[in-house]
Amino acid sequence: MGTLIATGLVDCDVHNHPASDAALRPYLPERWRRHLERFGARARHGLAQGYPYPKATPQAARVDAWPPDGGPPGSSLAFMREQLLDPLGVTAAILNCLHAGASQVDLELGAALCRAVNDWQVAEWLEPEPRLRASIVTPADDGELSAAEIERRAGHRGFVQALMLARTSEPMGRRRYWPIYAACERHGLPVGIHFGGYSGHPISSSGWPSFYLEDHTGMAMAFQAQLISLVFEGVFERFPGLRVVCVEGGVAWVPPLAWRMDRLFEELREEVPELRRRPSEYLRDHVWFTTQPVEEPERPEHLLQVFERIGTDRLLFATDYPHWDYDDPVRAFPAPLGAGLRERVYAANARALYEL
Amino acid sequence: MGTLIATGLVDCDVHNHPASDAALRPYLPERWRRHLERFGARARHGLAQGYPYPKATPQAARVDAWPPDGGPPGSSLAFMREQLLDPLGVTAAILNCLHAGASQVDLELGAALCRAVNDWQVAEWLEPEPRLRASIVTPADDGELSAAEIERRAGHRGFVQALMLARTSEPMGRRRYWPIYAACERHGLPVGIHFGGYSGHPISSSGWPSFYLEDHTGMAMAFQAQLISLVFEGVFERFPGLRVVCVEGGVAWVPPLAWRMDRLFEELREEVPELRRRPSEYLRDHVWFTTQPVEEPERPEHLLQVFERIGTDRLLFATDYPHWDYDDPVRAFPAPLGAGLRERVYAANARALYEL
Repeated sequence: MGTLIATGLVDCDVHNHPASDAALRPYLPERWRRHLERFGARARHGLAQGYPYPKATPQAARVDAWPPDGGPPGSSLAFMREQLLDPLGVTAAILNCLHAGASQVDLELGAALCRAVNDWQVAEWLEPEPRLRASIVTPADDGELSAAEIERRAGHRGFVQALMLARTSEPMGRRRYWPIYAACERHGLPVGIHFGGYSGHPISSSGWPSFYLEDHTGMAMAFQAQLISLVFEGVFERFPGLRVVCVEGGVAWVPPLAWRMDRLFEELREEVPELRRRPSEYLRDHVWFTTQPVEEPERPEHLLQVFERIGTDRLLFATDYPHWDYDDPVRAFPAPLGAGLRERVYAANARALYEL
Repeated sequence: MGTLIATGLVDCDVHNHPASDAALRPYLPERWRRHLERFGARARHGLAQGYPYPKATPQAARVDAWPPDGGPPGSSLAFMREQLLDPLGVTAAILNCLHAGASQVDLELGAALCRAVNDWQVAEWLEPEPRLRASIVTPADDGELSAAEIERRAGHRGFVQALMLARTSEPMGRRRYWPIYAACERHGLPVGIHFGGYSGHPISSSGWPSFYLEDHTGMAMAFQAQLISLVFEGVFERFPGLRVVCVEGGVAWVPPLAWRMDRLFEELREEVPELRRRPSEYLRDHVWFTTQPVEEPERPEHLLQVFERIGTDRLLFATDYPHWDYDDPVRAFPAPLGAGLRERVYAANARALYEL
């Protein structure tokens, strides 16, 4: 890695996971411990809500990512150091914990689980390992509860972002989510939108597709819909300091989306009189993208053109460790990046965005 | 237009419309006339199904497109000649009639209305005007009824395509739609997938957006989802002669979609063992695109790159007459096309595809 980038890698999407339900118990108040014993948790995970990862890779993990202590992938800090941080020369990694707190049907329980996850992250990840940063997990379907949790934890220097999942119950521009954006703007934290979620609606506007492959390919459309909503609802006018990071959604669709939005805005702008700029300008100024899984055109220079059009200051490298579609930094891109671009994508852009 | 293209324009998306319900009555059998008098038609048009066109432009029409005889836009052949065919030097135009036949909740009634529309098209459009061609409208939610209608009308030389709307009840690759593809393959007719439809699902995988602008922008995602479904369900393996035309969905999203599909197929191909080629190869060989509404990048040469990547033999010019977002052929593209490209896009590609 020394030859890849001298200043050390920043990995913008790493997944930690509680070793078991019991691992979170010390961080839950008595009330919720009793509730879980009596009633259990109910996440909106069924097939009718979204497609699980392929069974061939349990926990959606790399087959070599199971820690020797027997816990699930992402549950051991020691193993993460050994497998990711040390060998890759990672100077900072952003943890995005995808625990079920964010998808509970009972939003009060969801909020309690998110608080527990965040406190667990502080105690067992951020404090022991200074190379780690984390996203504040939120019960995003309730804007007020999410804002309260951001307020509660934004003061810890290890938290550099608030986390939402790409498939929310309603489009992200809608008023119910604004308290999240207000809290993030207040604390200078970006909102990270990560692959996944449980909206209850199919990934396609023509209903439930047959294959995981379709659901996964279609996730790029979920991100597009969220950016359409955030821009046209005027979120970036209302929260001019808001920064959004699209995590694990791909990047090549961004320029065509911006072109289409600009053209239709030209024709229909009366419908959204709050907007004072062209849609592409909001995207350019407010949105960042992680690179995994990056599209792979047959001619690699086409990907470099995409990077130029998005803005080379807006791209953030990510491995997605320990998930099955992990990107090795040495082989992440179909073409070698020049030294300046490499420095920006692998480190400098993330350092600037997250103030590392 | 003589200077634009010497061989005459082919317009691949023009909308004719019955002047009133009464205009179709002569083409309906007694049973369905009585049914309509007693019970009316029930199209799946409500807001819960999809967003109507903006009210400022009734019938979604250009304000100058109302015929002098008082009928709705697209209802007068004489006015269409005067406003479109003659001044633009159109040598062939493809009619895509968006009458409610395709979206009835009663599929038997829908099929009867589609038969009436197709017979009305023959008698009042195709026979009187040799420059016109038409799509066979289908009650697409029923594959068998649709196939029967294609069989019934494919013999008329004016019909050059079968029509589906982009938002079907289920993804288009699913088995219920295969009889349509079998019938089209048998008769050498492309399937035209046109903007619109009434799937019952929101355009976004996170639910109903606030604005028509979002619904319209998002329609590009509906097309993406349909191509994902058609490819991954193996439709082009099962029907190797099938050709698909995406009408009014934009084009710039095609290369990024192909890249993403190829990458994920590489990783998950075991899920779809019927596929023998890469997804991008099916798209390249089986799918055409009309150019209206074309994306407008700030730097026009970016659009020409998109054309090259899709294949300049796969692009078909369309005006969308008489709809509000009509593309004037002279101003349709943000950059002038070279003479060879112009000839292909404005005429030669359509002549080859539709055997004009």
